[in-house]
Amino acid sequence: MAKRENISSSVIRRLPRYYRFLLDLERQGIARISSKELAVRMSTTASQVRQDFNCFGEFGQQGIGYSVEQLRDEIETILGIKQHYPSILVGAGNIGTAIANQVIFESRCFDLVGIFDKDVNKIGKKIKNISIMSTDDIEYFCNKTTVMTAILCVPKEAAESLSHRLYDIGIRSFWNFSHYDLSMSLPDVIVENVHLSDSLMALCFRLNQTLNSEKL
Amino acid sequence: MAKRENISSSVIRRLPRYYRFLLDLERQGIARISSKELAVRMSTTASQVRQDFNCFGEFGQQGIGYSVEQLRDEIETILGIKQHYPSILVGAGNIGTAIANQVIFESRCFDLVGIFDKDVNKIGKKIKNISIMSTDDIEYFCNKTTVMTAILCVPKEAAESLSHRLYDIGIRSFWNFSHYDLSMSLPDVIVENVHLSDSLMALCFRLNQTLNSEKL
Repeated sequence: MAKRENISSSVIRRLPRYYRFLLDLERQGIARISSKELAVRMSTTASQVRQDFNCFGEFGQQGIGYSVEQLRDEIETILGIKQHYPSILVGAGNIGTAIANQVIFESRCFDLVGIFDKDVNKIGKKIKNISIMSTDDIEYFCNKTTVMTAILCVPKEAAESLSHRLYDIGIRSFWNFSHYDLSMSLPDVIVENVHLSDSLMALCFRLNQTLNSEKL
Repeated sequence: MAKRENISSSVIRRLPRYYRFLLDLERQGIARISSKELAVRMSTTASQVRQDFNCFGEFGQQGIGYSVEQLRDEIETILGIKQHYPSILVGAGNIGTAIANQVIFESRCFDLVGIFDKDVNKIGKKIKNISIMSTDDIEYFCNKTTVMTAILCVPKEAAESLSHRLYDIGIRSFWNFSHYDLSMSLPDVIVENVHLSDSLMALCFRLNQTLNSEKL
């Protein structure tokens, strides 16, 4: 479990999926698994699995396979999901409310410490026992409270100025649901984008392609 | 605008982003754009842009650039977003409600024709003027109404049996928010997965990595 410096982004992208599979195996009481079995369950190849896990040190033993618990634990450490990251959510609309109520709550590693919205009708209302504050108070709040991550659930037009305000008060990590490309104007921030409409368009493309091929 | 057969999935993944940029340009009244300018706006290279657009035929003219309107229109056709796909949403929880209220509504190409939930307290209530029906009635409803896509916003445990029921009544296209790997047991379906917790874990990893490097 030594080498962790240069794990490629494609391996990182696969880690959450391995993690989910390993959690399932643990729940089923399975203690050990071979790269071959894991590959079958994940629709990949055994050599891909071995190669991925080799990125972060020696694990499996020939003929014995991997310890599910050890591997799950190691992936937790690598992903950093044993830590706690104080976070704020900006934009308590449909998506923002769903994220606060469910995803953040289930994630365990991101602690929601503040929720902001510009809508006066929402300010003062509670989500998961956190009172919604005015976006005008973001700077005041973040000066008093440590905040590492901002979750942006606002329209593109609002995301531009908001992300710069958050940047100015030291926030360098964003979970971005807006269509604003943060990393273009703020190149030194960490941004994870969720573009739901892009995902829907990709589905659209594949559906349309299938329908067209059926017509031929 | 001839060749469209073998567009790679990585090009497809980039198309929605091009599309969003082109829509913005149109709103700003910009009629033509060079591959170089587009590349700058999208943090990519001009040769990447030219290569991507060459996949679906000849477009830009040397020295004149691309017609924004023509390119936007062509991408709409390629993505299939000019069509309408009748869709149902299963699971009217936090995420499901947000998707129905906002994302589907804004997408224009997916028409929500039915919403289902197993919670008796939700059945009969309305989202976007559509009454929530019991999941028991999915088969009955889909026999009467053409449905092309199912949006699964249910927990993993429910997704397995639900996806098989939907498959049995002919649905072959899924927008999947659950953690159930549909494509493993139903290899001939079109699935677009949205794993919000995976995205959050990827953010976690990058944040943790930055924090660790700052400690060094």
